[in-house]
Amino acid sequence: MPVSSIQLPIVRVNDDDLIKCADSLAIEEPLEIRLEYGPNENRQVKNVSVTMRTPGNDDELATGFLFTEGIIKSRRDIISAEHRFIACNENRENVIEVKLRENVVPNLSNTERNFYTTSSCGVCGKASISAIKTVGAFEHNSTVNSIAVETIYRLPEMLKQHQQVFADTGGLHASALFDQQGRLLLVREDVGRHNALDKLIGAALTTDMLPLDNHILLLSGRTSFELVQKAAMSGINMIAAVGAPSSLAVQLAEEFNITLIGFLRGKRFNIYTGERRVLMNAYEDTY
Amino acid sequence: MPVSSIQLPIVRVNDDDLIKCADSLAIEEPLEIRLEYGPNENRQVKNVSVTMRTPGNDDELATGFLFTEGIIKSRRDIISAEHRFIACNENRENVIEVKLRENVVPNLSNTERNFYTTSSCGVCGKASISAIKTVGAFEHNSTVNSIAVETIYRLPEMLKQHQQVFADTGGLHASALFDQQGRLLLVREDVGRHNALDKLIGAALTTDMLPLDNHILLLSGRTSFELVQKAAMSGINMIAAVGAPSSLAVQLAEEFNITLIGFLRGKRFNIYTGERRVLMNAYEDTY
Repeated sequence: MPVSSIQLPIVRVNDDDLIKCADSLAIEEPLEIRLEYGPNENRQVKNVSVTMRTPGNDDELATGFLFTEGIIKSRRDIISAEHRFIACNENRENVIEVKLRENVVPNLSNTERNFYTTSSCGVCGKASISAIKTVGAFEHNSTVNSIAVETIYRLPEMLKQHQQVFADTGGLHASALFDQQGRLLLVREDVGRHNALDKLIGAALTTDMLPLDNHILLLSGRTSFELVQKAAMSGINMIAAVGAPSSLAVQLAEEFNITLIGFLRGKRFNIYTGERRVLMNAYEDTY
Repeated sequence: MPVSSIQLPIVRVNDDDLIKCADSLAIEEPLEIRLEYGPNENRQVKNVSVTMRTPGNDDELATGFLFTEGIIKSRRDIISAEHRFIACNENRENVIEVKLRENVVPNLSNTERNFYTTSSCGVCGKASISAIKTVGAFEHNSTVNSIAVETIYRLPEMLKQHQQVFADTGGLHASALFDQQGRLLLVREDVGRHNALDKLIGAALTTDMLPLDNHILLLSGRTSFELVQKAAMSGINMIAAVGAPSSLAVQLAEEFNITLIGFLRGKRFNIYTGERRVLMNAYEDTY
């Protein structure tokens, strides 16, 4: 099991006092994701991404990344996802190679630019949203899935109890998956919020949980376009975040009938899209 | 002046009450950075990056990005940085084209992978740090620059007073530059923390302020490897952040003799590297 945090000597300043002590820091290391694919007589290896991540669950990260970026369509496309060791890199597990079945043709068109764009258009939010549709993200019926408001209030506290490395370091983003009853199913942490979500979706994909249309995704920070895009690829239709969403995150959520909640703190939150899935308390109905 | 936030209708939930109201959101839109370069008889145009950013200061963002990624060496490499309008993108200012002087050869070797690696080595933290050196980041003498502890305490409050879009939206990262006396010189905001820093460094580069070796950089969030790398490229030798640093951020700061402060809140902070530049109160000396 790779370690996700290290202890370093630091100086703590507290109201003009200096204290020499140790502090836990979240580990950040590069991970290169390589893809091996093609017919057996002519296998190719291509570097598709280098991301700065926290070690741990690298196979899920690679699998989730390939899926949420539209490079592969199914977990059955994958034969294996394993670390490769290179002599000069101090035997750290910083290269992972994913082997695809020989009949699988990966969609590598977007890896060149690390961004979805349609070839007929320039870059703008609208074009970005259209491009997500072409790679097979789920669009949702807004009547599917619903969660009680009381359940939503409790999500951050439940995540907090399970976010061990964050508790130690204060330096990690988390993605957590809950069912409709508010039971915590999966938590993944990383210095990069997109990596935390890729790990989570990779774990769900590997255990055949997709589409995640009876679940709620909790994000420990803010919601960007990229996070909604990854969620849409996995069939998630409810996202709650502790922080603020961006304008384009809201537009993408709207387009895909995803419920988007922000600023979830205590018994308060904002609903940006898809309020229909949030069930208010029963006594509210008789008000 | 492009707008950085928009108003959207939302539903606010507060202890089981529903309130329909409007909320301000930080705008997130893609920006494509294009480079025009080469001899006059054979100019080439290349897309070097697409980043999700908050509109505003796009010329600084493009200039800062090209400089901190080691693609250009000096602001004098640039003839102009201007938006290009493409018919189908609704006239949004989402493409910026930077024209280089004809004798300037941009270093595009890293744009293919969007990451620094040395050709002789695989990926690991050590290789990443070595690669930063090859593109011309500043290494510092630890005796240059120092700032009083009382000045450091005051930085977040001063940033807060000037972080207007964040105050409206809660959705932006900020980078701020202060002088040794704690005077705020520059603030830039963005949905992406790397963009906020690129905008800041782009602004400083454009006004011939580099190297920034008598300044302190304040980051509103966490400190990653990438942010320390960008700071090192601009000659910054003191970084203070409201959030936690990652392990590799600390290693890179150590390697370049950069002072790195984290968890700066009220009269408390942690010094991870370069404590020599932090001047404790005079009465401490006689203690």
